[in-house]
Amino acid sequence: MKINFYATRLLILMSSIFIAYSAYSQSYPITPLSNSALKAPLVINKQGSFFIGGHDVASDTLSTIPAFGAKGTITLDQMYVAYQIPFKAKSTSVVLVHGCCLTGKTWESTPDNRMGWSEYFIRRGFPTYVIDQVGRGRSAVNSASQINAVKTSQVSPEKLPTVIAASHEGAWQIFRFGAVYPETFENQRFPIFAERGLWQQMVADWNLALDEPNATPIALSALSKELKKTVLISHSESGIFPFNSAKISNDGIAGIISIEPAACPPADSDLTPYIKIPSLVMFGDFVDQSTRWAPRLKACREFVNKVNAQGGKAELLVLPEIGINGNTHMMMQDNNSIELAALLSTWIENRLSVK
Amino acid sequence: MKINFYATRLLILMSSIFIAYSAYSQSYPITPLSNSALKAPLVINKQGSFFIGGHDVASDTLSTIPAFGAKGTITLDQMYVAYQIPFKAKSTSVVLVHGCCLTGKTWESTPDNRMGWSEYFIRRGFPTYVIDQVGRGRSAVNSASQINAVKTSQVSPEKLPTVIAASHEGAWQIFRFGAVYPETFENQRFPIFAERGLWQQMVADWNLALDEPNATPIALSALSKELKKTVLISHSESGIFPFNSAKISNDGIAGIISIEPAACPPADSDLTPYIKIPSLVMFGDFVDQSTRWAPRLKACREFVNKVNAQGGKAELLVLPEIGINGNTHMMMQDNNSIELAALLSTWIENRLSVK
Repeated sequence: MKINFYATRLLILMSSIFIAYSAYSQSYPITPLSNSALKAPLVINKQGSFFIGGHDVASDTLSTIPAFGAKGTITLDQMYVAYQIPFKAKSTSVVLVHGCCLTGKTWESTPDNRMGWSEYFIRRGFPTYVIDQVGRGRSAVNSASQINAVKTSQVSPEKLPTVIAASHEGAWQIFRFGAVYPETFENQRFPIFAERGLWQQMVADWNLALDEPNATPIALSALSKELKKTVLISHSESGIFPFNSAKISNDGIAGIISIEPAACPPADSDLTPYIKIPSLVMFGDFVDQSTRWAPRLKACREFVNKVNAQGGKAELLVLPEIGINGNTHMMMQDNNSIELAALLSTWIENRLSVK
Repeated sequence: MKINFYATRLLILMSSIFIAYSAYSQSYPITPLSNSALKAPLVINKQGSFFIGGHDVASDTLSTIPAFGAKGTITLDQMYVAYQIPFKAKSTSVVLVHGCCLTGKTWESTPDNRMGWSEYFIRRGFPTYVIDQVGRGRSAVNSASQINAVKTSQVSPEKLPTVIAASHEGAWQIFRFGAVYPETFENQRFPIFAERGLWQQMVADWNLALDEPNATPIALSALSKELKKTVLISHSESGIFPFNSAKISNDGIAGIISIEPAACPPADSDLTPYIKIPSLVMFGDFVDQSTRWAPRLKACREFVNKVNAQGGKAELLVLPEIGINGNTHMMMQDNNSIELAALLSTWIENRLSVK
């Protein structure tokens, strides 16, 4: 009986080690597209754009000039979605969700004018959806009403919305091009010679001025339901959004890829919504040199471990751990961006059995 | 000799009549695309996006939260440009410039999910460029700095930027769906059943908060120079922008199409910049029922006449005058939008001898 007792303990221990090991030993093969597939004319079956979500709001501070009335109804909280469906499309689509102080432009041509991830995914056969977060880019924000209420002395200045713009110097650190502007980490991969092309992309961020809960994960949930089988690919500020969408409903979310999320769901929260969806949390290089990112990576690792301990299919990929070095926070624009897009495409094709 | 004198006078008179007549008697044939050309997969040689223009600005009110620094450099006044070049491309391109309270979305799928003008022009063979005006959509505006300066009591509230949002009720009148919301003009062509799809498109307009001169015509001028031979197609608020670009330089501007401009250049201004460029100012229906639009049409007619009197090639087309009735201010989304895109394409092909 004693032997049996120890044998059982040993078996449990070995299983735990195996589970823990397998969570970290996923392989990340990269099946690239051929040169001709990358360079041939792009054949699109359908393209266009639409909005999802939004509700009507009455305001009496829409304008302070006579040509436009102050009173009336506007629509807020809708999310802009641009899509392209390639000629021979896979059944699983991807949705690209940008981060702080950026728009859907993140995924288009890089600052040094190479192919963006959106075009890559289209060429790879994925129906591809690029969104502007609610309150950013082509998705409206309630700026006029809030500003005019203060401008006309109906509301006090400290009630103005919390709006931020990331400076070049600040973004340089946050994006881990270097420890401090304008120094660069050795062998970092962002095309610094074209940095202007990144600064041109940056816009003010109104997320802290939006009502809670943030409307983007709600819109992403509605979009996933419509798409039926989609992989939500998020970045940085939006990193947690696909998980928040999954908390609303798993419907339509075939997979989650979170690129350097500002936060993963807390490891001690209810993880049920994340168990059934294959997920990949991916980080680049130089993380341990960043007091901003090192704790986030640690927290994501705990989250991934807990999800797997409960039978989930979560993965944490730190690129240097598989020999891919030099990637910054803006890895979709780094000089190996196409290789990374191929890695993610292969991950989707393998893990979700996408043909 | 007397006979010769009168004959000469008669000849001059007849020539004048002929010139005046020909200015108004331009014909507007419509060569449509075939059904298969409208429905076949879209073959794109190259697509992507970039910014043009922009300069660095120092600020110390970028943020009011600790996670982002208040001090630093941001880039402003750049213009977002998305482009698609079809497989068999014409040598002349088009640039689509949206109006007030809208973004480049104007030209994409209509609210009732039909093909937008941008896709139509691509299918027609034109390299097609869709921009977001400076300070709108994916083109940054200085909102954070200006708001935070007041929020932190460094600047008084009345100095807040002038920002407007057009209400549904206001836009309804301005866009001439009807005399007053929710009435509609008889046989108006906007897809009212899908009005929500328009309200979702509308964003706050910061143009009055931008430095003068507005940076968009400057960026359009730079873009035209790069494109070498392009037709600037503007709408409403941006109606005058191509003319302002032509005032900077005629370089690269092969033609101007101005859809219901809020203003034409003043007829008594120096018209030299507009003489050599074929231009078309187009208005829809119900103009005489609008106190906003009737005087604008009148002023544009004077402008066109003066340009032609000086040897120019300007045209004013009021759609009901050639038997096309019911068009609203949002004619690129009206139920005959594809017919109008075909009309404009034919105009470009004929007037600019584009193959």
